[in-house]
Amino acid sequence: MKVPECNKSIGIFDSGVGGLTVMKEVMRELPAEDIIYLGDTARVPYGARSPETVTKYSLECARFILSKGIKLLIVACNTSSSVSLGRISEEVPVPVVGVVNPGARAAAFMTEHKNIAVIGTETTIRSGSYEKAIKAIDGSINVTGIACPLFVPLVEEGWVEGEITTLVVRKYLAPLREGSFDALVLGCTHYPMIKDIISSVAAIPLIDSAVETAKEARRILLEKGLLREGNTGPSRKFFVTDSPDKFARTGMGFLGSGISNITKIELGGN
Amino acid sequence: MKVPECNKSIGIFDSGVGGLTVMKEVMRELPAEDIIYLGDTARVPYGARSPETVTKYSLECARFILSKGIKLLIVACNTSSSVSLGRISEEVPVPVVGVVNPGARAAAFMTEHKNIAVIGTETTIRSGSYEKAIKAIDGSINVTGIACPLFVPLVEEGWVEGEITTLVVRKYLAPLREGSFDALVLGCTHYPMIKDIISSVAAIPLIDSAVETAKEARRILLEKGLLREGNTGPSRKFFVTDSPDKFARTGMGFLGSGISNITKIELGGN
Repeated sequence: MKVPECNKSIGIFDSGVGGLTVMKEVMRELPAEDIIYLGDTARVPYGARSPETVTKYSLECARFILSKGIKLLIVACNTSSSVSLGRISEEVPVPVVGVVNPGARAAAFMTEHKNIAVIGTETTIRSGSYEKAIKAIDGSINVTGIACPLFVPLVEEGWVEGEITTLVVRKYLAPLREGSFDALVLGCTHYPMIKDIISSVAAIPLIDSAVETAKEARRILLEKGLLREGNTGPSRKFFVTDSPDKFARTGMGFLGSGISNITKIELGGN
Repeated sequence: MKVPECNKSIGIFDSGVGGLTVMKEVMRELPAEDIIYLGDTARVPYGARSPETVTKYSLECARFILSKGIKLLIVACNTSSSVSLGRISEEVPVPVVGVVNPGARAAAFMTEHKNIAVIGTETTIRSGSYEKAIKAIDGSINVTGIACPLFVPLVEEGWVEGEITTLVVRKYLAPLREGSFDALVLGCTHYPMIKDIISSVAAIPLIDSAVETAKEARRILLEKGLLREGNTGPSRKFFVTDSPDKFARTGMGFLGSGISNITKIELGGN
């Protein structure tokens, strides 16, 4: 028996555990949907790799998750969304949502003084993806990108509060003092984990790409008549390319709940 | 014409730029030797990956560098040395030197109170490789391992001095205050870059595995009659699996001199 299109899963992939902050928001926004999550944990982080390498890895992730039968693909990795979304969309026959455009749209919508700051990994910031996406909506908006390479390792170490993380946040966000910014976009899925510190240091409204992406996924499913409702026991399946135990341990904090049903797979000879 | 064995290169591989601190010491100890360096920069860091994945990647590195014609292989990555040295030695028909045993030997040699501390990545410490190597020399020595996952990203960000790095070092090295340790082994190739801070916080003698490994390489070549002398223009070739530009930029600080002659290669479908 063929599965009706709307009963298919939402696929989400990320370079590691970070995308679980996006999955958390998708579960909140779309509680009846089945979800398949892939974390390419053997090759994490993508953030400092070249665009060619990121695209190669991202396509391998997209192909795998597509083979599981999905109705929508969320590219939960900001780095992949920044440099590989075009290539993925070309190849994948279901709607593809990245995390950059939803965040960019929310930022463009709320700015008054046309001055927005974006924080992310080195590759995301260097790609200028948020700037391009925001300027595509309104070319007169100024966008300042700040790369914060230490936020991801700090979060993965579990140092989500305390003096050291506060000092690191202050050091990276020092440029914010020099301009009158309307909003700060969290352009990396790990950053919601240190939202409180970022918020207190930045002292301007934050835009969480994870929240905006979940809303965008809902909008697309609704438009296409693919929204699932009344499924009271939605399934959540996880695939990883390195140790499932470590993923379960680290991931719990990101997802905000326990993780089971994890399968280890191989991708592209990793 | 066949190249005489002693005129062949020394091969060094690491997961990234860190092994350049080992290469620096090899150049100091063995200035006439040709050197081939491979940095698996597309898949760095190895430190948080599972032992199976680390061994798979390490064997791919070893095979590649062996194909270039070498007389000695230095596994400059502590993680690889900790979990994959046996497998590499089995497969490679030239002498293989890891960074763990030389550091362990130096530590066992200098301890008076039979109490040694080792710092390294999560995988190196969890593997207990230094403890095993030290206890194989003297079973009565106590070894305390401390994982310091943030040191590598701090060094790669270039924050090799200042308040934040000092606070991070203090936080990780707090357990040192609770015991009377004779020496602290720097069990990761990145750590010599923050040697000054570590030294001032630890206030005990440091053992630099890079220095000990270079001495060990010299000893082996001498023993086997493979030492090269009188080569006034030794060649240095570099291979990487991700962007050569970034490697040249980041690597300079590790090697202590400029890097040219870099070739990008593909390993294991990365």
